[in-house]
Amino acid sequence: MAGTDRSKESRTGGPAVVLVQPQLGENIGMVARAMMNCGLGELRLVAPRDGWPNPAAEAPASGARAVLKAARVYETLCEALADCHFSYATTARPRGIIKEVFTPKGTAADLRRRIGEGQKTALVFGAERTGLEAEDVALCDVIVNVPLNPAFSSLNLAQAVLILGYEWYQSGDETPEAYLQTGESPPADKGEVSAFFERLEDELDSVNFFWPDHKRPSMVRNLRSLFNRLEPTQQDIRTLHGVVSALIMARKKRGPRK
Amino acid sequence: MAGTDRSKESRTGGPAVVLVQPQLGENIGMVARAMMNCGLGELRLVAPRDGWPNPAAEAPASGARAVLKAARVYETLCEALADCHFSYATTARPRGIIKEVFTPKGTAADLRRRIGEGQKTALVFGAERTGLEAEDVALCDVIVNVPLNPAFSSLNLAQAVLILGYEWYQSGDETPEAYLQTGESPPADKGEVSAFFERLEDELDSVNFFWPDHKRPSMVRNLRSLFNRLEPTQQDIRTLHGVVSALIMARKKRGPRK
Repeated sequence: MAGTDRSKESRTGGPAVVLVQPQLGENIGMVARAMMNCGLGELRLVAPRDGWPNPAAEAPASGARAVLKAARVYETLCEALADCHFSYATTARPRGIIKEVFTPKGTAADLRRRIGEGQKTALVFGAERTGLEAEDVALCDVIVNVPLNPAFSSLNLAQAVLILGYEWYQSGDETPEAYLQTGESPPADKGEVSAFFERLEDELDSVNFFWPDHKRPSMVRNLRSLFNRLEPTQQDIRTLHGVVSALIMARKKRGPRK
Repeated sequence: MAGTDRSKESRTGGPAVVLVQPQLGENIGMVARAMMNCGLGELRLVAPRDGWPNPAAEAPASGARAVLKAARVYETLCEALADCHFSYATTARPRGIIKEVFTPKGTAADLRRRIGEGQKTALVFGAERTGLEAEDVALCDVIVNVPLNPAFSSLNLAQAVLILGYEWYQSGDETPEAYLQTGESPPADKGEVSAFFERLEDELDSVNFFWPDHKRPSMVRNLRSLFNRLEPTQQDIRTLHGVVSALIMARKKRGPRK
């Protein structure tokens, strides 16, 4: 059944994933799962070897059965791409074909731009063993190649879909590359931190920790710098106060260290 | 057997991959394959459920059995990390833990910096069903979280390793985001392109294609711009010359179009 129902097509806003002559139902299921991980929902199958629907796809799809259910089947890649404006052939070995080659990251940026302009796009993947035939690649606009260990670069089908989907998702995601996960406790403010330092330094002064006197300023500075590196939360400061109290108690119990 | 043989450790220059209590041998095999895809060679197993070596890991590892063979087994995560300076806990659910959180991309950048400084690093992954326990996360320095569809973000073990390994590999890879794959044919130079344009325009002039006259300059400009968009190779230019010759022949055969 060729694609006639256009109403569902922009369900996800992302590219369609087209599998050309996929062999194992298990792999189709794992592709569906990888797609859902990445917020992609539109799966197109070109002449799946074992027919469709294929019960073998169900379990590996795990929570992504909705993607399988919405999958559409085509007889040829040409039909599967009929309503698309731009398509990307994923292939590791573009022998003698003259085409632009994108990395997955470059693909994601290009997808965002084209989809933003209202273009319908498709990522095209070949069969498990053979990959895309030259005729299939020729039908697509550009090639996508995943830069990986040249001595061992073949990805299985679901992993290739995952890498492309991952880059698609990242290109629209704004998570900073690193941030502090503080749980329920907000970061301590400088007043709370200073109050802790002053208490700690008072206690340490009481046992002449900062000795000799002329080294006191640099010793205090180093100690403050050490705890500041923690970027302490309010809970951290409470914990540190507790540790100081406990150590003082231990000292009192054992008697002062000589 | 705890890690004593340091000579093998920097085999790959990349981080070690540490699997905590992995359950299925199949998954360990797929992890090895994903590692090798990404140029990672150092696998550490903490208390694998089914013992080690595990024959079930062999087939899924496909060409990456060398990674399995070199894997080392530890009783605890603490032992597996004993020689590491910095470790990254991959976990989707860092409940109430106060730690820095990295994306895979941020992790890759941080790994490059630390490894460049001579630090030994480890990426730590939990068991298939349960992920890392809070105690395991506490042993690591930072958390890695893969930003994915929040409604469906759980990755299987090998896919999580693949994403981290992929970002590690990309961070050291210099493939441009898009480039022209020209096969054996180098790009045409401007002289070859101009010669083709002139021939084409002469032929088109001979049948008064550029009409009316005052529109000629913009029509020529549009046509040149159309073919320039191809970024033609030398082979493309030869092909286009051939097409022009063939069309002229067809015209001669059929007689001039009226």
